[in-house]
Amino acid sequence: MSKLSNAHVDSVVLLSGGMDSCVTLAHALAEGRNVGVLHVNYGQRTQQRELQAFNDIADHYGISKRLVVDISHLAAIGGSSLTDFSIEVGSSLKPEASSLKPNTYVPFRNGNILSIAASWAEVLGARFLYIGAVEEDSSGYPDCREEFFLAFEKGINLGIATGEKISIQTPLIHLTKGEIVLKGYELQAPLHLSWSCYKEQEIACGECDSCILRLKGFSVAEKVDPIRYRIGT
Amino acid sequence: MSKLSNAHVDSVVLLSGGMDSCVTLAHALAEGRNVGVLHVNYGQRTQQRELQAFNDIADHYGISKRLVVDISHLAAIGGSSLTDFSIEVGSSLKPEASSLKPNTYVPFRNGNILSIAASWAEVLGARFLYIGAVEEDSSGYPDCREEFFLAFEKGINLGIATGEKISIQTPLIHLTKGEIVLKGYELQAPLHLSWSCYKEQEIACGECDSCILRLKGFSVAEKVDPIRYRIGT
Repeated sequence: MSKLSNAHVDSVVLLSGGMDSCVTLAHALAEGRNVGVLHVNYGQRTQQRELQAFNDIADHYGISKRLVVDISHLAAIGGSSLTDFSIEVGSSLKPEASSLKPNTYVPFRNGNILSIAASWAEVLGARFLYIGAVEEDSSGYPDCREEFFLAFEKGINLGIATGEKISIQTPLIHLTKGEIVLKGYELQAPLHLSWSCYKEQEIACGECDSCILRLKGFSVAEKVDPIRYRIGT
Repeated sequence: MSKLSNAHVDSVVLLSGGMDSCVTLAHALAEGRNVGVLHVNYGQRTQQRELQAFNDIADHYGISKRLVVDISHLAAIGGSSLTDFSIEVGSSLKPEASSLKPNTYVPFRNGNILSIAASWAEVLGARFLYIGAVEEDSSGYPDCREEFFLAFEKGINLGIATGEKISIQTPLIHLTKGEIVLKGYELQAPLHLSWSCYKEQEIACGECDSCILRLKGFSVAEKVDPIRYRIGT
């Protein structure tokens, strides 16, 4: 990882490579932001595929300011089927789900990712952190709720040394998946380059929570998802 | 880094290996906590020596639950003399200091470290996070202020999935360095195993902010620091 130059970037966009972060980036650019994009590997199953999506989307927009960070300690800490490959990827959407907390939940992932983003934003002098979290129409992770982001933003602003405040932007937080798809089309976001599947890296499984939510979004929006699926819908 | 077993630990103690974290650990143990200790390498100059101090102190207390995490991305992000070796380690304590923010400040370091601690605590089922931050009698880092910890604790509790709350414990937050030394003696903390110097790894420099604050503490407490210094005081 090389040192990065710090000129002119006013926003850090968290870009996992999934549909939501892809649309969030399109939104930030449509707002006229000059962005740096941050991608975090946390030892997840589909790490390589997500990194490819990150780079494909950044290439699409000609974004040179990129930071890829490895926090594989989240995998060592464990507790999630996304990072512990001995646990089968579960679902919180299907009737057999017995737990409020889906097993795809990675303990305090967004806290860790936002802390890295805050460090980078402080060094860059960026004032906005964009994250494509979705509260209602999602897998029910606690660190995707708006009240979490509001509290965390306060923590960031008390913990950084710059005079200027950093603002966490969550443009998708109250959208449904269908509305996110429509917004993506409206903004001409490169959804064909994004990757959402939790399980597979070549052809999306169509069965995991993330695929189900994505496909539901396209269905409601009456659009066809441009990526390939193993199981037709 | 191996997977760790999760039995019975009720507290995570951040143990950098410095004097303050050493006394904080002694305090947590005196309160009857069953602790896991967390150490973070963030690409700092004295990384190896601090890790040795961490292990020496944990050995002293027979603590088996240890997690060592590497977040060298903080070094790649830059902005601090502790991680960018082209910047001379500066001082905020000496008269020539011209900036409110010392150049030893690592952008949002405590936010990053506490996020890792929160992830580990969530998996362990630990309810307390101990951190040896000192607000007044310190180098003036914004992420060492009590109001930062209070806000961050709220963020953590909104971002984790457990029903139980996690409480951030800062037993040293309003102590002077002299009071910390006295507390260390009272609790029989192994201060001879701790390491505070920002610059050197064999014999402490006696000149950096961290050495100056530590030596001031011993002087005020009328104790002799058991570690060796290059420059006598």
